[in-house]
Amino acid sequence: MVTAAVAGASGYAGGEIVRLLLAHPAIEVGALTAASNAGSRLGEVHPHLTPLADRVLVETSAQTLAGHDVVFLALPHGASAALAAQLPDEVVVIDCGADFRLGDAQAWAQFYGSEHAGTWPYGLPELADRDGARHREALAGARRVAVPGCYPTACSLALAPGYVAGLLEPEDVVIVAASGTSGAGKGLKAHLLGAEVMGSMSPYGVGGVHRHTPEVEQNLSRAAGAAVTVSFTPTLAPMPRGILATATAKAAPGATAASVREAWHTAYADEPFVHLLPEGQWPRTADVLGSNCVHVQVALDERAGRVVAVAAVDNLTKGTAGAAVQCANLALGLPETTGLPLTGVAP
Amino acid sequence: MVTAAVAGASGYAGGEIVRLLLAHPAIEVGALTAASNAGSRLGEVHPHLTPLADRVLVETSAQTLAGHDVVFLALPHGASAALAAQLPDEVVVIDCGADFRLGDAQAWAQFYGSEHAGTWPYGLPELADRDGARHREALAGARRVAVPGCYPTACSLALAPGYVAGLLEPEDVVIVAASGTSGAGKGLKAHLLGAEVMGSMSPYGVGGVHRHTPEVEQNLSRAAGAAVTVSFTPTLAPMPRGILATATAKAAPGATAASVREAWHTAYADEPFVHLLPEGQWPRTADVLGSNCVHVQVALDERAGRVVAVAAVDNLTKGTAGAAVQCANLALGLPETTGLPLTGVAP
Amino acid sequence: MVTAAVAGASGYAGGEIVRLLLAHPAIEVGALTAASNAGSRLGEVHPHLTPLADRVLVETSAQTLAGHDVVFLALPHGASAALAAQLPDEVVVIDCGADFRLGDAQAWAQFYGSEHAGTWPYGLPELADRDGARHREALAGARRVAVPGCYPTACSLALAPGYVAGLLEPEDVVIVAASGTSGAGKGLKAHLLGAEVMGSMSPYGVGGVHRHTPEVEQNLSRAAGAAVTVSFTPTLAPMPRGILATATAKAAPGATAASVREAWHTAYADEPFVHLLPEGQWPRTADVLGSNCVHVQVALDERAGRVVAVAAVDNLTKGTAGAAVQCANLALGLPETTGLPLTGVAP
Amino acid sequence: MVTAAVAGASGYAGGEIVRLLLAHPAIEVGALTAASNAGSRLGEVHPHLTPLADRVLVETSAQTLAGHDVVFLALPHGASAALAAQLPDEVVVIDCGADFRLGDAQAWAQFYGSEHAGTWPYGLPELADRDGARHREALAGARRVAVPGCYPTACSLALAPGYVAGLLEPEDVVIVAASGTSGAGKGLKAHLLGAEVMGSMSPYGVGGVHRHTPEVEQNLSRAAGAAVTVSFTPTLAPMPRGILATATAKAAPGATAASVREAWHTAYADEPFVHLLPEGQWPRTADVLGSNCVHVQVALDERAGRVVAVAAVDNLTKGTAGAAVQCANLALGLPETTGLPLTGVAP
Repeated sequence: MVTAAVAGASGYAGGEIVRLLLAHPAIEVGALTAASNAGSRLGEVHPHLTPLADRVLVETSAQTLAGHDVVFLALPHGASAALAAQLPDEVVVIDCGADFRLGDAQAWAQFYGSEHAGTWPYGLPELADRDGARHREALAGARRVAVPGCYPTACSLALAPGYVAGLLEPEDVVIVAASGTSGAGKGLKAHLLGAEVMGSMSPYGVGGVHRHTPEVEQNLSRAAGAAVTVSFTPTLAPMPRGILATATAKAAPGATAASVREAWHTAYADEPFVHLLPEGQWPRTADVLGSNCVHVQVALDERAGRVVAVAAVDNLTKGTAGAAVQCANLALGLPETTGLPLTGVAP
Repeated sequence: MVTAAVAGASGYAGGEIVRLLLAHPAIEVGALTAASNAGSRLGEVHPHLTPLADRVLVETSAQTLAGHDVVFLALPHGASAALAAQLPDEVVVIDCGADFRLGDAQAWAQFYGSEHAGTWPYGLPELADRDGARHREALAGARRVAVPGCYPTACSLALAPGYVAGLLEPEDVVIVAASGTSGAGKGLKAHLLGAEVMGSMSPYGVGGVHRHTPEVEQNLSRAAGAAVTVSFTPTLAPMPRGILATATAKAAPGATAASVREAWHTAYADEPFVHLLPEGQWPRTADVLGSNCVHVQVALDERAGRVVAVAAVDNLTKGTAGAAVQCANLALGLPETTGLPLTGVAP
Repeated sequence: MVTAAVAGASGYAGGEIVRLLLAHPAIEVGALTAASNAGSRLGEVHPHLTPLADRVLVETSAQTLAGHDVVFLALPHGASAALAAQLPDEVVVIDCGADFRLGDAQAWAQFYGSEHAGTWPYGLPELADRDGARHREALAGARRVAVPGCYPTACSLALAPGYVAGLLEPEDVVIVAASGTSGAGKGLKAHLLGAEVMGSMSPYGVGGVHRHTPEVEQNLSRAAGAAVTVSFTPTLAPMPRGILATATAKAAPGATAASVREAWHTAYADEPFVHLLPEGQWPRTADVLGSNCVHVQVALDERAGRVVAVAAVDNLTKGTAGAAVQCANLALGLPETTGLPLTGVAP
Repeated sequence: MVTAAVAGASGYAGGEIVRLLLAHPAIEVGALTAASNAGSRLGEVHPHLTPLADRVLVETSAQTLAGHDVVFLALPHGASAALAAQLPDEVVVIDCGADFRLGDAQAWAQFYGSEHAGTWPYGLPELADRDGARHREALAGARRVAVPGCYPTACSLALAPGYVAGLLEPEDVVIVAASGTSGAGKGLKAHLLGAEVMGSMSPYGVGGVHRHTPEVEQNLSRAAGAAVTVSFTPTLAPMPRGILATATAKAAPGATAASVREAWHTAYADEPFVHLLPEGQWPRTADVLGSNCVHVQVALDERAGRVVAVAAVDNLTKGTAGAAVQCANLALGLPETTGLPLTGVAP
């Protein structure tokens, strides 16, 4: 049994990590830390975590995080680097923030407006590079892992198989994604009030300014072996959880419905968490609620000359906390699927 | 006072027409007809139409529709042509179905799989052709009008200004739109049950097969003066009403943020129902709930070389019934906005 | 044409008053005032009020409210008294807050913890006293009106007919009501975030502590001509608007299904805004969305010896702003229904 | 490892049983049967059960159910008796239907309108009789178990502690409960369409006619040692899952806030699935989503002379399928909590 601490356990991502760890047979929940919520009972901030309702949140610091085999960081962007630097090298540190996701310091500066903290192995095990190598190779035994953003997980897994198979053009990818409002976090903002979001869809970060844009481009570029450019528009959907990414790219000459299907099938046939649906069945976010699975479907639109790939993930599970635990499993040498839910909670 | 009959008053579109007519100062509600619901009280099928709760639905037929100045048809696709042929030429017939929307008989055959019934003036008054002429010119005094599909209304109004202004490339438009589930009608289908749709987003009709695709292309092609091709993906969103269309097209050489904004401003400055939001504010479907307004916003994504335009409409109001009443106003020579709500019901 | 100012126009109640006034044929929208939002465009805080998007909110003060025939106060509890005192006696002041609703200073002190400001005519025109007199009698020509709370409107209209008819016992009324989250206002509270409320029902103010309790008791006591005691439990429902009040009282000896139905029918047959549904049809909040109507149904449970009455209202329309406009109509000598919507926006 | 068949696996209850069994360490999923869906892939009807997507549903019959250690019946009311009679006595049969829940044949006839099939041990392990004995005693080693209805689970657990402790009066209990729409099943009914239920609350089965009424009375009467009468009103809430039961009973003479709290604390301190929240914190259905836990809170309303107890359960998990698995655990001699989730999926 290894022990894990969760920094930022009062937020939505942190709470989801705790939820998953409570069902994990090989990792024990250690310190749960918070900032302004330090001193609160876990049951006050996350009443759904019934078995740990009486656990008290402690202050986030290198001291409270010390002595664990794994430390999950679920902190605001920019907070991870300083904290991680104080943790011993042999501790597995899994960062759910953005700080170490990008390899390109210039893209970081442009989109985040601060100094680039560095680059850690990217925690999307199923993602393949142009040569077919999966990212999981770099994660086995890793001591630092950058968990992908929720949108990039959905968008990258949707389209990458077409790039690896050479069936998609790199330029002019267009992605529109819908996210449940937990993706916006627990901060108090008027536009996130229930009365505002129920019954409403709205876009945000339009025009290439959303911070997940360079991360999607980075992932797809590695899959394509060429620079991929993406028009990315996120939208807020009236649901608590879930991302539906509708991703389209121009079909390369010679791409056929059969070759497209074959490419996606090949990519995911052996992946336990990525499920290519049977032809004609399209993903629904409800089917992956609380699950670490991704549901994927793809079609060739011959009239428009585009391949349309759709992926559904739970932004908090496979989109954040599930990926974090999956990467911890790889880092610790455990079977990759250990303790992770494969079924959604539906209807 | 003119009188209007509504054929198909038991469906969602028909019910919305009745709702709007009840607030209309110049049109009186006449016969309300239905198929399997004939004989029912209106209050059984549309309890929200309180003032007409005791009105009894009668059988849809040329006889029951006779004697009205205006007949609104809110029928399943394919049912309008036969009925309309039996109505006198001088009666204003407003068809909310698809039968008479397309000018291209071949596109009709391909997407609808039946013989083309013909083409009526297209009921999107605000839409402009390449030469700047608005569709409303053909609607003044018309005796037959084809009300646009709900998606085409949102998609066409989102992008048309850029085509009229020469700022967008015709090929390779990509549109992803989210619709509330009333857009799928009142038919009993398992995937439309509340337990299935709440908390879930899912696409359908993916790959260029949705029947609204050729209608969007027809509209944008007229605006562009060139053949526009569209990749269109509709998605089902967990809300009763509303469409959010996220539409992107390649920016033409020389397009700038300023010229883009100017084009959209010029297009809609004098339109009472189309509201270009101030820069930085993006449409939300809740803000047009029950309203005949369209909220529009646009941005140039210079990195991706695309213009992203977003439109929010209520699929049942401006997307169907409101457009029908607006067109009836034009046909009857009434002020175009007569009786139509300009405010949404929010939050 | 009379003019009206709205104090607190940036909140949900204030915004709804503006929405209704925009459709009112005899009242013109004057000054719109706010506290922290003064200086903002109305389109920023209420994008659904499209026609007034560019109107700027001004500071709430006796000066900005001066010069109007009607002043609607939509302010936090406790703020109305001081402001109203500065307005001329001949101005119609309609207070949507609680300050002047209760006749019992002791009940006020117990539930609100402050000094009682006084008692104004109570703005529930349809409510009847034991002698059958309706509250509207005191509202005709009134210059000060206290608009009822949203829950009391639903609860009182549900049960009052049984008291007036002598069919209900005064002691031991039990009411459980569900409200959409706009009822909690626009304040930023973690439990009102969309991610928290969607998919969730929860009670609050349990155990007789909710401030609407004495108001319901006051209303029912007047209808009963005896002291009515109420166990009231409000719950938060995952919807933006609407109240469903399920109210039960012990049947008096001799009450029968027929006499119960007759009593409710008699009470509301001539009321334009209160609609007793046909037997067997029960109210749904969606059917009164955005409408000033109340849908009511009642049944006698002979096994349990209780009458169960259910009322659905839109908390922002008939529950607050619609009642305010209705009372303004009465105060101004206009027909009571002027400008008020009788249909809901459904589905 | 024991094997289990699920009859009626295509419905919501059946699907939830499969979901729970997939996470159960000691029970293996055997035959999954259906009626009209026999021959379908499980992935078509329950796409969220990803690991078994390719499993084919077989016809429900004694033959297909043969050879399993446990058979779960998730069938329409009335279908269980005939089927159960064909299963060997030594097989554990867990019936999620109503057929064997009631002990009173007359109440069965009155509420279900058919002949009473009999009475099996009642599967609510935590429920206590007047003498403090828990129902689980009759479930250990049982070969036939009647799983409670979803509402009776919430209602009975809410109030029973007060009866066992002698703090509540038996007559005149009033319960209003809100349920997610999955509680109404997967049958195609117009009022269950997403467009109808989203944004809406409505009651049904009002006036003492809901079939769960005698079941609640039966449970509370055993706890009280006296005949308890209940006014029960169920309401449909705009959420997929979850029940919130607000239950009130008259306080017996001498009941105090302290004695009430003590009684509920005593009742549930050692129950793994029933969680009495800290004072002042009230249950939310979202917190038990997908969990086998019940969240309970209670307050004494001294003004009204009533105790108000609120329970939140997931109607499909603890309300049906979780209880079924919990009872199977008891029947099989496994630890009662084996394989059952203690955390909800929130937000």
